[in-house]
Amino acid sequence: MEARMRAYNFSAGPATIAEEVLAEARDELIEWHGVGASVMEISHRGQDFMGLAREIQQDFRDLLAIPDHYQVLFLQGGAQAQFAFVPMNLKRPAQSADYILTGTWGEKAWQQAASLGEVRVAASSKEDGYRHIPALDTWNLDPRSAYVHYTPNETISGVEFFSDPDVGDVPLVADMSSNILSRPMDISRFDLIYAGAQKNMGPSGLTVVIIREDLLQRCPDAMPWVFNYRMQAEQQSMYNTPNTFAWYLAGKVFKWLKAKGGLEAIEAHNVKKATLLYEAIDASDFYRNPVERSCRSRMNVPFTLARPELDELFLEKSAANGLLALKGHKLVGGMRASIYNAMPIQGVEALVQFMQDFEKDHA
Amino acid sequence: MEARMRAYNFSAGPATIAEEVLAEARDELIEWHGVGASVMEISHRGQDFMGLAREIQQDFRDLLAIPDHYQVLFLQGGAQAQFAFVPMNLKRPAQSADYILTGTWGEKAWQQAASLGEVRVAASSKEDGYRHIPALDTWNLDPRSAYVHYTPNETISGVEFFSDPDVGDVPLVADMSSNILSRPMDISRFDLIYAGAQKNMGPSGLTVVIIREDLLQRCPDAMPWVFNYRMQAEQQSMYNTPNTFAWYLAGKVFKWLKAKGGLEAIEAHNVKKATLLYEAIDASDFYRNPVERSCRSRMNVPFTLARPELDELFLEKSAANGLLALKGHKLVGGMRASIYNAMPIQGVEALVQFMQDFEKDHA
Repeated sequence: MEARMRAYNFSAGPATIAEEVLAEARDELIEWHGVGASVMEISHRGQDFMGLAREIQQDFRDLLAIPDHYQVLFLQGGAQAQFAFVPMNLKRPAQSADYILTGTWGEKAWQQAASLGEVRVAASSKEDGYRHIPALDTWNLDPRSAYVHYTPNETISGVEFFSDPDVGDVPLVADMSSNILSRPMDISRFDLIYAGAQKNMGPSGLTVVIIREDLLQRCPDAMPWVFNYRMQAEQQSMYNTPNTFAWYLAGKVFKWLKAKGGLEAIEAHNVKKATLLYEAIDASDFYRNPVERSCRSRMNVPFTLARPELDELFLEKSAANGLLALKGHKLVGGMRASIYNAMPIQGVEALVQFMQDFEKDHA
Repeated sequence: MEARMRAYNFSAGPATIAEEVLAEARDELIEWHGVGASVMEISHRGQDFMGLAREIQQDFRDLLAIPDHYQVLFLQGGAQAQFAFVPMNLKRPAQSADYILTGTWGEKAWQQAASLGEVRVAASSKEDGYRHIPALDTWNLDPRSAYVHYTPNETISGVEFFSDPDVGDVPLVADMSSNILSRPMDISRFDLIYAGAQKNMGPSGLTVVIIREDLLQRCPDAMPWVFNYRMQAEQQSMYNTPNTFAWYLAGKVFKWLKAKGGLEAIEAHNVKKATLLYEAIDASDFYRNPVERSCRSRMNVPFTLARPELDELFLEKSAANGLLALKGHKLVGGMRASIYNAMPIQGVEALVQFMQDFEKDHA
């Protein structure tokens, strides 16, 4: 492999960002846009940043074709903060909410909500180690629930939903941290979507919330105001000082994605990458991915080696070949290749080539 | 004034950052430290970032001489999130807490806490428009309070405490967002300090919490876990994905401050700047600062013009002269010069010169 200053970075998050995006940010880091300062040194309430903020919001809405009756918020705290703020905003104390567990993140969301009040597990695939999605007709949904929460893509086990569940009149809440903007989504099928930025949108420290406007009336006053969706919606996500640099960088990612052809184009790109990698895994007896084929994630591809004693060597050699951060999560072991939007096809090709060479040398 | 690409930026926050710090970040933005990726693209749990995190923590502790029995947390959400998380972590529902109001931020902290449970105002200078600090012997403190909360520097009215109040055995909580690291502080006089980074520490989206270790036992489980001080302390502030880029940049600010000679040196620098500006204001009948002299902020200097109809012209001309963001907060009107650590003395000299010229032309 030729020498590259930048490696192919398979980190699950914070994750790789397109080099073009970083290069633009570098060129503007000391002085942005003729304002005499870096974008991170200026007031979020000044006209320069406010203009940028409107553009970021519009580009994001364009990409996902977000209907007008949804508000888009740019908050802090990460998706794990939302694990608390979804129930705090949407659920009255006497109400319950339904959680669908198809991986560790859904489980954590449920645990946090359970620490704050009554919630139910309506379906779970934990008993098989989160390798499949329970069939919708087996979900034990309570029609009086405040909402149904699920995780469309689970980064650790590598399980992804490819259709949006119909849960009737109960609001549907989705933690889309790891597959947002990876393909077109019909936003009108959801009532609340939240997503940490550090996989498909930019750096960590930014969380996007898309919420159906009428749900804002549920948000109570007795909660942390900077995480009250209604208050932030009224203030264009500037109730408090936002993470302005992350907004700015995410804005550049949105422009980059538009220039690439938007979500249809990126979906084709993501399908191609995932197919290439899963086919290489399935064609070999040395590598293995345990997830049911219909719900294999296009974003996070965990795989194990037939001889786990070779894990360390695999990691060492792959890193030396410019393939970074392939170590699997400790809960499942083995390897994991996260191949979000910003991973080029050349990165997956290089990984597949490396895997085949490693197998030849060590199988 | 000579042409500079970068202006002197008097923004109250997000605020100016030393150009040397930004230049380093620029040079490393695409590839950091030989890891093959930007610092914002790598896992916070990997050894490269963990090593950096330890260094950042140690530099911060060194600067403030933080005793071993205090934990330092790097969180998200800004100081306004702490307005909620201080009572949620430290106060039992049946307990009250005392708030000292010497400006708008203390007032907001109290309002947020009051929305969550019982709290008291133990002292306030609101009746005179926050122009003085109520004498300590007039504070109506409740010895059964969970804590006493105050704001050592108020950015809007420009009021600063220059001695740390003795509130007996009740834990003392300080929102030091706008004067942390501006001078040496005796941390042992405080029980909890929090501060948003976007004034003296770096970009927005990072909040530092310094907490006396034994207070961690108060933190209940039924609250948002990413804002539970005990859980974050147990996980070195990595319970969830932190704002890694802001940590990195704040780390560079800490190094810059150390190289400048630490907090004694920066205090001398800050005293010099503030003295220069207040003397210019006091020497003139055209400019006025209404704050009692003993508590005039060294960080934020609000001033009004004798003829408010000239405000717009002053702002226009100052900006054209490379002096940015001098508009006062709408609550007090007029102008405000924020002169945090990173504002060079040359910036204040240029401002004073401009003010004198403007007065000559328009008084």
